[in-house]
Amino acid sequence: MSILPKAITDLTNSFERLPGIGPKSANRLAFYLMNAPRTFGEEMARNLLRVKDEVKICQKCFGVAEKDRCEICSDEKRSEKIICVVERAIDVVALEKVGGYKGVYHVLGGVINPLDHVGPEELKIEELINRVEVIKKGEKVEIILAMNPTMEGEATALYIKKKIENLNSKAEIKITRIGSGLPIGADLEFADQITLSRAMDGRREL
Amino acid sequence: MSILPKAITDLTNSFERLPGIGPKSANRLAFYLMNAPRTFGEEMARNLLRVKDEVKICQKCFGVAEKDRCEICSDEKRSEKIICVVERAIDVVALEKVGGYKGVYHVLGGVINPLDHVGPEELKIEELINRVEVIKKGEKVEIILAMNPTMEGEATALYIKKKIENLNSKAEIKITRIGSGLPIGADLEFADQITLSRAMDGRREL
Repeated sequence: MSILPKAITDLTNSFERLPGIGPKSANRLAFYLMNAPRTFGEEMARNLLRVKDEVKICQKCFGVAEKDRCEICSDEKRSEKIICVVERAIDVVALEKVGGYKGVYHVLGGVINPLDHVGPEELKIEELINRVEVIKKGEKVEIILAMNPTMEGEATALYIKKKIENLNSKAEIKITRIGSGLPIGADLEFADQITLSRAMDGRREL
Repeated sequence: MSILPKAITDLTNSFERLPGIGPKSANRLAFYLMNAPRTFGEEMARNLLRVKDEVKICQKCFGVAEKDRCEICSDEKRSEKIICVVERAIDVVALEKVGGYKGVYHVLGGVINPLDHVGPEELKIEELINRVEVIKKGEKVEIILAMNPTMEGEATALYIKKKIENLNSKAEIKITRIGSGLPIGADLEFADQITLSRAMDGRREL
């Protein structure tokens, strides 16, 4: 027998299933919402449903969209000659916050991960190849592979690189990988060996 | 113009208004819910409303309840001769998790805080006094003041102590305050002066 009303434990359980929220925070949030104005909970409940009902997938880059095309793919000021390939739609948000990038994106929906039974066919790799295939002879294009610098991210980057090279496209396609090394503010002393070796490999002339 | 669908930014804003959730986590949660099964979002939305509809306030201790009396006040095995006074209903959860406490509670609903315009009349202090007043002559009772060891918590504890003493009750009322000192696992070197002085004052014979 719990000393708490079931409505509180049920809401606590809902919060606890979210990533990064532990049992204590979940309980705290449930009590917070119990004490918050009713309109706040109602608005949040509405927004929880809207995110499933109103968000679509862009049919070009597979990022999030309100219509069939996302805001970025519909933006004529964006260059289609630079395609940044990312794992998830939320990565687009992170890169856009930096500002300055004027190309477009391609969201894979994950990375190749045999342990999780994710093969290339589960990802939007074929669709990326199709986007590259239609690039005309002589055109200059850059494909930035911006998957996370994890083992799976690296493997996926190599797989895509090979696929594009095998196309024998007549276009001038440059394939790049985002820089890897020490993050700003980090300390050499505490960095792991792979990061350090990447930082050395990726050194630039000043 | 945001690059994100409005449904995502609206849900992000809802999450961001919760305590302890920053803009990045809020965004991450919104994307998580977008990708989660629809039933999960629906269940969470339902629970958000239920917590306002189904949770009542216990008419005796002012903790959370499903009926007019909470599970603790309705439990005949609990001794009404020990009343633990806490700030908020969630504090009851924390103390109950420890286990072993066999008394009852009294939830004040906050602490006296002139800066936030919270006076004694905004709290359930009068109701606590009423509970103490009906204790019959000769009965032995303990009132544990378990407000947080903050300046406001201390002031509220002193205020309540005075109020109870002024009652001139014929019962044997012992008023105690929860122990204060170094938390388990803490380091003397990093403890603040007030905590250290409390730890010294609260020393016990071994």
